[in-house]
Amino acid sequence: MTSKTYTANDWLNFESRFRGKFFNSLLGPKPLALIGTTDKAGVSNLSLINSIVHIGANPPLIGFILRPTTVPRHTYENIRQNGDYTINLVSESLLKKAHQASAKYPRHIDEFQALDLRPEFINSISAPFVADSTIKIGMHFEEEHTIAANQTRLIVGHVTSVTIPENSVTEEGHIDATDQNTILSVGLDTYHKHAFVTRIPYANP
Amino acid sequence: MTSKTYTANDWLNFESRFRGKFFNSLLGPKPLALIGTTDKAGVSNLSLINSIVHIGANPPLIGFILRPTTVPRHTYENIRQNGDYTINLVSESLLKKAHQASAKYPRHIDEFQALDLRPEFINSISAPFVADSTIKIGMHFEEEHTIAANQTRLIVGHVTSVTIPENSVTEEGHIDATDQNTILSVGLDTYHKHAFVTRIPYANP
Repeated sequence: MTSKTYTANDWLNFESRFRGKFFNSLLGPKPLALIGTTDKAGVSNLSLINSIVHIGANPPLIGFILRPTTVPRHTYENIRQNGDYTINLVSESLLKKAHQASAKYPRHIDEFQALDLRPEFINSISAPFVADSTIKIGMHFEEEHTIAANQTRLIVGHVTSVTIPENSVTEEGHIDATDQNTILSVGLDTYHKHAFVTRIPYANP
Repeated sequence: MTSKTYTANDWLNFESRFRGKFFNSLLGPKPLALIGTTDKAGVSNLSLINSIVHIGANPPLIGFILRPTTVPRHTYENIRQNGDYTINLVSESLLKKAHQASAKYPRHIDEFQALDLRPEFINSISAPFVADSTIKIGMHFEEEHTIAANQTRLIVGHVTSVTIPENSVTEEGHIDATDQNTILSVGLDTYHKHAFVTRIPYANP
């Protein structure tokens, strides 16, 4: 198989949308989720996110990259005002409605209504979950870091709740998102499914 | 489908390894890569990473979470000393050898030799690529951010080269990692493959 190497000389000449697709798809499929927030006036907001990252298990911490160019500022402002937010993984049956969340709605629009998605409230978390998501994670803002190189932000929160189908955790603690038909995003408009290949025991030198 | 909600009261009582598996698998499949570095003595190091995140396309920036508890410090020290490092996506044919990189080898061991992987050098990048990886990304250190909540680090670099099979970029700039059989990681020991489902045009309100 012949390979080709691209360097800055190439991508500085890429058309802007081509460059966006190239680097957004480079790492392959990534977890896809709807971030649920509420503003001071009680209007609910949903953002489609595909730059989520596991940060730690004890305490449980999850981060995501908030890019001003692709995500409306509403999500950021709501998280900073409210503290609570939700991460709702997108299953195949939710995909069409979830993708529509990437459209930029005006602030006064309740996006659950606009996208025809049912909100759900769990425990005392003051942000809406997506009722039909099968993996729903309650979050509370912990810290943010601004990436100097491009002014995006890493938003870090700690997990406050995990709502998953009963019996989806193995005896060892593993949660298999395949059972929930979770969808992955390649770039901003292409979606993949996934399937188990193998499990390999802990490696020793 | 009946759901179950877990809260801190539950996971504070989880056995430590159970909690690790639970939160590592919660987000589902994630991109899997080998990070290649070289130390001052010229010894090559490989680390298996599954917390990679796209940060931006212009300039192209990629981050990963370096967890002191799961990744040997060699990778971090080499990146800070050398500046250059490589991200090599793991394809199905590379998986067994790549998984073995999660073992903790002593510093003086060249991990390409230990894992029976061929190093490759591209342009003037002073860190080794994994020759048999089909998506190889040259990186240079940009900045780091320490997450106060658990002392892990977000390592941010800018892309210096992208080596992919010829003809794998569409006219619009999309790179399809399915063609390269890239493998995804669910937690630390379970691996998934992926397949195209759909492409949905840009959403408007």
